[in-house]
Amino acid sequence: MLKVVLCRSYEFICAPIVHQRYRQEFWHGKAKGRAEPFTRPDLSLSSQDWGNLVVGRISSWVDMDSPLDNVRRDAEKVLEQEFAYSGHLGLPSILLSLRSVNSQNLARFVYSKILPASQKLIWVHVPLHAPELVAQKLMASSLDEEDDQELPADLDTWEWWSRFHRSCDSDKKLSLVLELNSADLPSHTQMMRWLGEPLAAVVLPTHIFMTNKHGCPVLSRPHQAFVNLLYRLDIQVMIKGCDRHNNLRYYQQYMEHLWNSQPPDDPLTRFARGFEDFLQVPLQPLMDNLESSTYEIFEKDPIKYSKYQEAIHRALEDRVPVERRGDTVVTVMVVGAGRGPLVRATLIASEICGVNVRVYAVEKNPNAIVTLYSEKRDYWGSKVTVVACDMREWDPPEKADILVSELLDPLETTNFPQSASMEPRSVVTEDGISIPASYTSYICPIQSPKLYGDISTMRDKDKHPMSNFEMPYVVRLHNHTQLCEPQALFTFHHPNREPVIDNNRYKSAQFTASFKCTIHGFAGYFDTQLYKDVQLSILPSTHSPGMFSWFPIFFPLREPVYVRQGEVVTANFWRLATHRKVWYEWNISSPLVVPIHNPTGRSYTIGL
Amino acid sequence: MLKVVLCRSYEFICAPIVHQRYRQEFWHGKAKGRAEPFTRPDLSLSSQDWGNLVVGRISSWVDMDSPLDNVRRDAEKVLEQEFAYSGHLGLPSILLSLRSVNSQNLARFVYSKILPASQKLIWVHVPLHAPELVAQKLMASSLDEEDDQELPADLDTWEWWSRFHRSCDSDKKLSLVLELNSADLPSHTQMMRWLGEPLAAVVLPTHIFMTNKHGCPVLSRPHQAFVNLLYRLDIQVMIKGCDRHNNLRYYQQYMEHLWNSQPPDDPLTRFARGFEDFLQVPLQPLMDNLESSTYEIFEKDPIKYSKYQEAIHRALEDRVPVERRGDTVVTVMVVGAGRGPLVRATLIASEICGVNVRVYAVEKNPNAIVTLYSEKRDYWGSKVTVVACDMREWDPPEKADILVSELLDPLETTNFPQSASMEPRSVVTEDGISIPASYTSYICPIQSPKLYGDISTMRDKDKHPMSNFEMPYVVRLHNHTQLCEPQALFTFHHPNREPVIDNNRYKSAQFTASFKCTIHGFAGYFDTQLYKDVQLSILPSTHSPGMFSWFPIFFPLREPVYVRQGEVVTANFWRLATHRKVWYEWNISSPLVVPIHNPTGRSYTIGL
Repeated sequence: MLKVVLCRSYEFICAPIVHQRYRQEFWHGKAKGRAEPFTRPDLSLSSQDWGNLVVGRISSWVDMDSPLDNVRRDAEKVLEQEFAYSGHLGLPSILLSLRSVNSQNLARFVYSKILPASQKLIWVHVPLHAPELVAQKLMASSLDEEDDQELPADLDTWEWWSRFHRSCDSDKKLSLVLELNSADLPSHTQMMRWLGEPLAAVVLPTHIFMTNKHGCPVLSRPHQAFVNLLYRLDIQVMIKGCDRHNNLRYYQQYMEHLWNSQPPDDPLTRFARGFEDFLQVPLQPLMDNLESSTYEIFEKDPIKYSKYQEAIHRALEDRVPVERRGDTVVTVMVVGAGRGPLVRATLIASEICGVNVRVYAVEKNPNAIVTLYSEKRDYWGSKVTVVACDMREWDPPEKADILVSELLDPLETTNFPQSASMEPRSVVTEDGISIPASYTSYICPIQSPKLYGDISTMRDKDKHPMSNFEMPYVVRLHNHTQLCEPQALFTFHHPNREPVIDNNRYKSAQFTASFKCTIHGFAGYFDTQLYKDVQLSILPSTHSPGMFSWFPIFFPLREPVYVRQGEVVTANFWRLATHRKVWYEWNISSPLVVPIHNPTGRSYTIGL
Repeated sequence: MLKVVLCRSYEFICAPIVHQRYRQEFWHGKAKGRAEPFTRPDLSLSSQDWGNLVVGRISSWVDMDSPLDNVRRDAEKVLEQEFAYSGHLGLPSILLSLRSVNSQNLARFVYSKILPASQKLIWVHVPLHAPELVAQKLMASSLDEEDDQELPADLDTWEWWSRFHRSCDSDKKLSLVLELNSADLPSHTQMMRWLGEPLAAVVLPTHIFMTNKHGCPVLSRPHQAFVNLLYRLDIQVMIKGCDRHNNLRYYQQYMEHLWNSQPPDDPLTRFARGFEDFLQVPLQPLMDNLESSTYEIFEKDPIKYSKYQEAIHRALEDRVPVERRGDTVVTVMVVGAGRGPLVRATLIASEICGVNVRVYAVEKNPNAIVTLYSEKRDYWGSKVTVVACDMREWDPPEKADILVSELLDPLETTNFPQSASMEPRSVVTEDGISIPASYTSYICPIQSPKLYGDISTMRDKDKHPMSNFEMPYVVRLHNHTQLCEPQALFTFHHPNREPVIDNNRYKSAQFTASFKCTIHGFAGYFDTQLYKDVQLSILPSTHSPGMFSWFPIFFPLREPVYVRQGEVVTANFWRLATHRKVWYEWNISSPLVVPIHNPTGRSYTIGL
């Protein structure tokens, strides 16, 4: 069988560890006490083939959660035997199927097998629709989102998976294998929820394929669309069932065709390749000095600096009427000049619109200063004054007409005007302009067991046990689902002309769950108005096309929060600062309470 | 004022830290920028008096959760000032009042103040009824349990407290001060729920007192009953409001009278005094050898051994018909004989009923053997054979007619017949008797933020971060509330005559919440049938009167689970064993999933 499959160019096979024929019973029943060997011998394949080509499937008849004691005990014995034999064979992973919402005893067993430091992966096979619904053709139509009512837990296969997974503390060795077991697909929101789960593979039974005019198997358009979404998660495809199109190879060829006909990636996706769901500790540009390679990455962004240039251009034009452009010099201060991209943008804008500028390039990183001086000597000349100083300690010789500051982290916590303990009003003239003029952060509850599992396994003995959950991470969010649309969190305007300046913030935001799911934390985004309608955004709905300077940020929750469709999630966020540092605290206060994370900044602060 | 109060024999006073007259505003309003000092000077009392006699009350007008930014920021400044001043004065605790269900910003502030290693306690003052309900006289009658519907969260002051407390991670420095602000009391179940919270004090406004025929203040009978329940938690009583009975001292005298007229404690309560809510690691009598003092405590129990004696007596009588008592000798094996209490019980029973016995006293603890030999020499003589051996390794010269084994831990995990990897059928004759004949463990979900807080603060760097939550504790449960009636968990019968013996167990139990509450874990109890209707029980409803040998056991949950009235809680418990050890695993799988605790016994096992 394996040979047949592999010469049809499949990459692996999923086969039962023990054939049903060898079924054994330990506690009762006629198979009790059979003296025969319990499965085929290991000599049928080489170790290398067992280890690379075969996923072992647990006997489907075992019922670990039977209400009958004897059945359950038999099941435990059989599973014990099959797990041991798959270990003996060196199979890379084991596939087992969930058959109902109640699989707590199976979960307990599996959890005990994956906890030891074995590398074996468990593939948890779940049908997209409960077989009961398929039999009765009761699936909600995928087109009728209005009718998208919450299924009872015992008919909702996402509940089957989710409860099983959570019982095992969302262990990373567990992956999901989803079977598209019907020609119907669930609603869009429900499909998106599956995309937030740690999918390893999708199972396509041959009966869901249609036949095209050449007699070859093809999927319906909705199935194609869903499979295309799944492909983005880099999953395996498994074909199941008897060959209904004369040659098993045709299925494989068709799936390869689908794979190859996906649209090419956009620049951001290309740039982010390899960084999907990779958790990064946010930069601390005010406390640390950035490295050359970091500058290089930021400078390569095709959008960010051209938008800055456009904003500066517009501001210069507004600042000086056409008739006075010959005899007026506009003072521009570039704060956080780095290796000079914003200085260049300023000079080019000045050139184009014919407004003269005097530029102060202020930078605290002595390593970047080297580059700034060399640029000044070679290209910029007297128009630019390099100031090797922390802006916050600088006493400027004059006030700025335009203050241009660099944007760095995804919540703009460390952006200069707001990180300064006092707003630098004194630096800008009374009618001076700040670029950016404002920015707004956004948050959205998301489901991502993958990120939750990753954070759970990071542990630092010397820190508070929750510290990994009490800091935000910069991450290219990939294997996740948004609960609903993001909401605005905090807005900052510059220059801030309020009588008392307080950059502390508190907001309680309410989100209504579009579907039943589990929240593992919050995605953080921002958008910014550089000048008038010149904007930058990393918010998914308004993302500046092609811009890759910022990934979203992720605020984890130390416990996943289960929410039902229509329930209101109240998230509380605080931005708090002292003269030396700034930090966030966050929690959830409905539908249930999760303790406040990072109180007093005990686990994470950003140095100023 | 303080002098007035103290000479009325009160023990302390609760007074505002800053008088309303000194009210300051920082952001807006007419009190902004007042140059006066913000409160009375500290010279008015000595440091010792400030530190012992005064609980500081936070200004009641501050609104930390106002939707108005300016009001909120003013409140933050005022709170900062009042906390600082109460620190300056050295007040032992600070009282602040919750005014609505939404106090997340207040919680954040308070949490940040108690996290540092200060010893200051926060008393969180909550009315028993939402003032809105009191004003409209809408409280449910305390007699009408049928009508006991769940209040909406904003009118349920338990929600106010519970959300606040949970936001601060149930920190131990937070205690509850409950004000009985109406002549009506809530339903019994709701009052029981308050008794599960960490109460520091109760506030009795003078207006709820009635006047008796002598013109003195008295409480209504329901209030008396509730105050009596509260007294058990060893709390403070605070009298609030103007004197309506001519002398403040009368209130104090009445409360003292109530205190003194409580019924005397039963023997168990007396025995357990000082052990309330004290978490103890269960004994490991099979692995370790018990100490002399431990034996002494067990032997002092007035009930346990007399019940054993009764059971042995009944078994001996059943075993030997009256006419054959002269010429029959019954073989009794006492397993885990310790210092001999069960041997004594056997000999006395034999004496009384006139059935001759031959007793084997089997004990593995070499230190206890010393006592057994001395007892044999001095009192027992040839009737008793001392066997210095672990029962599980002993090859007995004959079979026992009656096997008597000691009960030790509250779930009987380590009781000999079931801890042995094989049931010792071979030790008992075919129609032999085991005493105990069976036992059953029970569990019940309970609310106890106190125990949760205690377990949270235990940390062992070298262990799994959840390990404190993954073990059971023996504890005299005190400050807790049961969600509903306990349910039977596992039953063991002895001698076990099943063809295959398997002492592993799994049970999924469902509990319906009688009221909205938070579950922090499970109380574990047991009862045992020693012989026929001779029983012992530590189950609250059937507790053997006066028996103190066992406190309940507590299985914690790593996250509190919030459940609504009428919701079904599914608890899963496993008893698992290898040849060398036995352990429990547990979790909750509805209304939401909590991961399986102690998988593979990673945090806790009982050695065999």
